[in-house]
Amino acid sequence: MSTVGKTITCKAAVAWEAGKDLSIETIEVAPPKAHEVRIKVNYTGVCHTDAYTLSGVDPEGAFPAVLGHEGAGIVESIGEGVTSVKPGDHVIALYTPECKECKFCKSGKTNLCGKIRATQGKGVMPDCTSRFKCKGKDLLHFMGCSTFSQYTVVADISVVAVDPKAPMDRTCLLGCGITTGYGAATITANIQPGENIAVFGAGCVGLSVIQGAAVKKAGKIIVVDTNNKKKEWGLKFGGTDFVNPLELPQGTTIVDKLIEMTDGGCDYTFDCTGNVQVMRNALEACHKGWGTSIIIGVAAAGKEISTRPFQLVTGRVWKGCAFGGVKGRTQLPGLVEDYMKGDLKVDEFITHRHPLEDINHAFHDMHAGDCIRAVVDLQK
Amino acid sequence: MSTVGKTITCKAAVAWEAGKDLSIETIEVAPPKAHEVRIKVNYTGVCHTDAYTLSGVDPEGAFPAVLGHEGAGIVESIGEGVTSVKPGDHVIALYTPECKECKFCKSGKTNLCGKIRATQGKGVMPDCTSRFKCKGKDLLHFMGCSTFSQYTVVADISVVAVDPKAPMDRTCLLGCGITTGYGAATITANIQPGENIAVFGAGCVGLSVIQGAAVKKAGKIIVVDTNNKKKEWGLKFGGTDFVNPLELPQGTTIVDKLIEMTDGGCDYTFDCTGNVQVMRNALEACHKGWGTSIIIGVAAAGKEISTRPFQLVTGRVWKGCAFGGVKGRTQLPGLVEDYMKGDLKVDEFITHRHPLEDINHAFHDMHAGDCIRAVVDLQK
Repeated sequence: MSTVGKTITCKAAVAWEAGKDLSIETIEVAPPKAHEVRIKVNYTGVCHTDAYTLSGVDPEGAFPAVLGHEGAGIVESIGEGVTSVKPGDHVIALYTPECKECKFCKSGKTNLCGKIRATQGKGVMPDCTSRFKCKGKDLLHFMGCSTFSQYTVVADISVVAVDPKAPMDRTCLLGCGITTGYGAATITANIQPGENIAVFGAGCVGLSVIQGAAVKKAGKIIVVDTNNKKKEWGLKFGGTDFVNPLELPQGTTIVDKLIEMTDGGCDYTFDCTGNVQVMRNALEACHKGWGTSIIIGVAAAGKEISTRPFQLVTGRVWKGCAFGGVKGRTQLPGLVEDYMKGDLKVDEFITHRHPLEDINHAFHDMHAGDCIRAVVDLQK
Repeated sequence: MSTVGKTITCKAAVAWEAGKDLSIETIEVAPPKAHEVRIKVNYTGVCHTDAYTLSGVDPEGAFPAVLGHEGAGIVESIGEGVTSVKPGDHVIALYTPECKECKFCKSGKTNLCGKIRATQGKGVMPDCTSRFKCKGKDLLHFMGCSTFSQYTVVADISVVAVDPKAPMDRTCLLGCGITTGYGAATITANIQPGENIAVFGAGCVGLSVIQGAAVKKAGKIIVVDTNNKKKEWGLKFGGTDFVNPLELPQGTTIVDKLIEMTDGGCDYTFDCTGNVQVMRNALEACHKGWGTSIIIGVAAAGKEISTRPFQLVTGRVWKGCAFGGVKGRTQLPGLVEDYMKGDLKVDEFITHRHPLEDINHAFHDMHAGDCIRAVVDLQK
């Protein structure tokens, strides 16, 4: 029996309040309104940003909510006026939407889109209401995606159709971590052959930067991590060198070490840690005259970056990016194609898998050093 | 009688120690060694960097020294191996040299040159010695120029010949302030038609940014200064708006005001104050997604810039430049040509003139709000 136009009852992992485990609940998902899309979510990754909000330290976190923003699924139904996807399409949800109409989208200078920023930030759909209900209460949406539910509703600018032959239990990771790092290297930095780079933090995002740098034929690709187990991971994705900053000789800083290894400093450095002191080191390890440091990691609330302005006056550049600078609707299908052709590693990131009912394990996995990405199967 | 190969005795303003006025002395200037050029300095500007070092707060300042780095003159003689200039050439001294051979010069990415950086920073010629003596003591060189002397010796990569028809009492200012601001707008930022910019601090450098932005047909060119007298100056050089941050309504910050005036933030902002809080405001007044803030001002020793990393993750870019990103030997003759054609204002910056013996007046002038640039005539 068709579910089109009807409320769907399904399972979801609900974040009732900050600092508590998610709770598997039966929720109601209303049909999509105009310019909205209801998706049957098959797989979702679990990302540090979900954990950050769930922990309660995210000042913009609001509850109760359905978290999750790294998901792949199938369009179940579409609201009035939706033309970009149709029922049955295999899709990836986009926490960075792309309307193609706003000042940002038309600028040609950024992948940020302004169209639904305000409502997305508040955890509601563009009409300021929610499509989720549980025990009679509205649940908030999250990052415009809410992929920790068997069904979700997103704005039509927050979803992209991809090759239906691509396995969704892998491509879900293109919804955040892999694309963020890979895009930072290949689009935001646009690394040129022979350029030396350093990546601070070899988790999913950092390894994806490394992969992107290798594709771009970078020179030295230096993996910086305090966990020695990440050496093998880093080299597997294309890293050429590994440095553990905790194991440097007395009196040698990571900045000194990187400048020495690269004869003056890196052409690009990437912070994938969210630690503001690491961000500073990443900047200061850049080559005088042109070295550019790109902040990808999300810092804790209230934390600030600092440096001496002389670092910038002598030519270093400090920037950042969200979702790697990738325009989701325009560029994500191409990344899926690259994966299908074998040019982009995705499977290799998946270290853990869980059914929806064990989603809290995925959060615990993240804090263990041996987890790169856990994928949750919402069909189980 | 030819002075070639001989020590020249002349007048100079000597900085014997930090925090004291300069002292007019008779000094001895040795002939140029290989790859050095002796210049008869006719005119010099006096810049805040000279005052900064003289004040003693510059941690790298060393005494006794011959300060000054904004000078124009005539080549008196050249050392062995000098091919780029010849006796009689009208020249401008370059505190940012250009060897055309080092990693920096060949990078195509920066105007910084690495060749004599170490010795220049120590106040000596590339062979680690000084060409200046006074009362039997060696005097240090300054910024590779030392233009507060009737004769100076510089490395051959620290000087450029320009059109001999150009009046040196004006073109001396192209040795620092004007070029720094103009280059920041036209080369480092490379402002495109219609882009909105804000300039913090309307001194010689800031007014030159404004001039460069106007030449590049910027949209809004917003002059930000706490001195209302700078409104007229800013508009004269092409500014379209003036804001005094001290006169905003209660609760409105300069960042709020600039974002409102530009419908989301500036495409480029320029700090020409050296104040680290202003540098932060300049960054945060940039447009999300692409706005770029360029630090030009020199901060006091030990001061640091800070911001929330979110400012960068959402697309703002923080950078800086020295000498405006201009390659002195390659690009400065073109600026002199622009001046001669009437396309580049220079005369308008000169508010005060002094003979060498009154050079201390030029330092005092700078602290008065009505001085843009004082030019010192070393022939008087």
